[in-house]
Amino acid sequence: MPNEVGDLSERELIQRIQRQLLPPPPWLLVGIGDDAAVVEPVRGRVEVLTTDAVVEGVHFDRRFTPPAAIGHRALAVNLSDLAAMGAAPRLALLSLVLPGGLPCGELDAMVSGLAAQAASHRVHVVGGNLTRSPGPLMIDLTLAGSVKRRQALTRSGARPGDEIYVTGTLGAAAAGLEQLAAGGAVDEGCARRYLYPEARVRAGLLLARNRAASSCIDLSDGAADGLRRIAEASGVGIRVDAPLLPVDEEACRWFTSRCVDPVEATLQSGDDYELLFTVRPRLRHRLAAVHRHGGVALTRIGVCTDTPEEMVWRRSAGDPASDRPLPAGYSHFR
Amino acid sequence: MPNEVGDLSERELIQRIQRQLLPPPPWLLVGIGDDAAVVEPVRGRVEVLTTDAVVEGVHFDRRFTPPAAIGHRALAVNLSDLAAMGAAPRLALLSLVLPGGLPCGELDAMVSGLAAQAASHRVHVVGGNLTRSPGPLMIDLTLAGSVKRRQALTRSGARPGDEIYVTGTLGAAAAGLEQLAAGGAVDEGCARRYLYPEARVRAGLLLARNRAASSCIDLSDGAADGLRRIAEASGVGIRVDAPLLPVDEEACRWFTSRCVDPVEATLQSGDDYELLFTVRPRLRHRLAAVHRHGGVALTRIGVCTDTPEEMVWRRSAGDPASDRPLPAGYSHFR
Repeated sequence: MPNEVGDLSERELIQRIQRQLLPPPPWLLVGIGDDAAVVEPVRGRVEVLTTDAVVEGVHFDRRFTPPAAIGHRALAVNLSDLAAMGAAPRLALLSLVLPGGLPCGELDAMVSGLAAQAASHRVHVVGGNLTRSPGPLMIDLTLAGSVKRRQALTRSGARPGDEIYVTGTLGAAAAGLEQLAAGGAVDEGCARRYLYPEARVRAGLLLARNRAASSCIDLSDGAADGLRRIAEASGVGIRVDAPLLPVDEEACRWFTSRCVDPVEATLQSGDDYELLFTVRPRLRHRLAAVHRHGGVALTRIGVCTDTPEEMVWRRSAGDPASDRPLPAGYSHFR
Repeated sequence: MPNEVGDLSERELIQRIQRQLLPPPPWLLVGIGDDAAVVEPVRGRVEVLTTDAVVEGVHFDRRFTPPAAIGHRALAVNLSDLAAMGAAPRLALLSLVLPGGLPCGELDAMVSGLAAQAASHRVHVVGGNLTRSPGPLMIDLTLAGSVKRRQALTRSGARPGDEIYVTGTLGAAAAGLEQLAAGGAVDEGCARRYLYPEARVRAGLLLARNRAASSCIDLSDGAADGLRRIAEASGVGIRVDAPLLPVDEEACRWFTSRCVDPVEATLQSGDDYELLFTVRPRLRHRLAAVHRHGGVALTRIGVCTDTPEEMVWRRSAGDPASDRPLPAGYSHFR
């Protein structure tokens, strides 16, 4: 009985993967098994496309990341990008690069993590590619969705005076990763936030539909990074009010126990996959519906200013003397 | 002065890549630099999507594959999949997984190989992803194109009696690879066919537009593999007439010098990226325009039979006693 992917043919592997996927939808004219997929576009909407890879040793560590979490993450990071555009996800192309020695059970678990999340967002895997890896395991996913032409959210629409919001809480994923990597006691909530991030698809859709947000980005590389990118794309300055930041309680405890400033640590923390967005003050009432149906808290954390050089977080409300520069973003390459 | 990609930030790398790409087209509503790309669909056509990765040590060997050829190949293998569907290519998402020690000059050359081919097929790179690799270099590309709904070519339309055709010649790429890997004398034509494969985009488009082909596939994994897949998807048998096979002359000489049957070797040879397609005999006249404007020779090599178990090549015309079984296809995993 085969127990490693290297024992199976490409066709057997594809069948094994396909068993876990949703049945083909009517708009899929040609699906898995031909040279390419053929799909009917969504009428009256524009297409939103993104691609993101998760690589062993860079984005996850197999020693403490269960295979299901790897599959979950590969889809979540892409869903999060579509959420930030206000798009409804629709289909995925799945490119797997697998070491020959990967146990088949781990492949199954990985695919199940991906498939479960795909099912819950009604994302159909319409095609993909399988390749042997001479090194690390990799999942590269391309996700396509759609949005009404005038409703797509971008990073560039913020104006001075716009209020800055985030969904959910921040910092727990980074704390979870630190705890898992340290190998000691692990807070289950934090570990879960790191291992199974939930993309804010519903909140993104509602922000776009209600035209509530002037700009939006997802926080894959941390709040400081997201704030800097919105500021740069929109040509505004940023002031975050530290006391407003929705720092996860357990994360706050963890950072404090490590003698790290929890605000600074949280601003730099990656892997949150929350949405950061800006709202014109006069349109603030539009957030009510997003809050009611988006399934996640929305918290005002600061304001866009008319001084693009100004990139600060304020420790004490109303006290400019307590301003600190926003930490730099995270770079994968330097 | 930085000379390795690991010395650059993600943003610097993106700028470096973007400099070589086509300017954004009017249908690209949001391009590189946001969470995802937003594109206007092509009116009155359906979408064709494919993804294919090239991985160092699996699909290319950096010792004898120049960086420009790696970039060229990454796009060509995907273009070939769209060609096999009869689709017009339109946009690409480029996912690069790069070792930190890759010299910047090699990245530039790789991107230039990809960009040159993208420009010649008017393919726009609308987004992508950059990741550090802890191991091999990888380029994963997703390509989207379009085709008229009723004109998409698939693998499943062949019927008994349909004639089987291929574009161009076969075997040169495999001979080129063998020669390059052996490190001795190299025939320039064969090496070029391996290093810079030309996807048959124009021929595929014409086959679809003229409704000339009943089925089509590209020969990335060799003619035998392509024939088996058409046969299986269409439920027909296959008989190839060996004397008709357009074996490349230099490849024939190479295989013969290695004491390998050139027909058998050619049927098993991968990397040709020619199109294999079937044609109803009464529609054969439709090939004239494909031949005239497709920029490549079309050669009849056999026939589909009504015996699905029959998968043979015939050594001597008209002599069933000279039938040999078609070799098996190539599998990346076993």
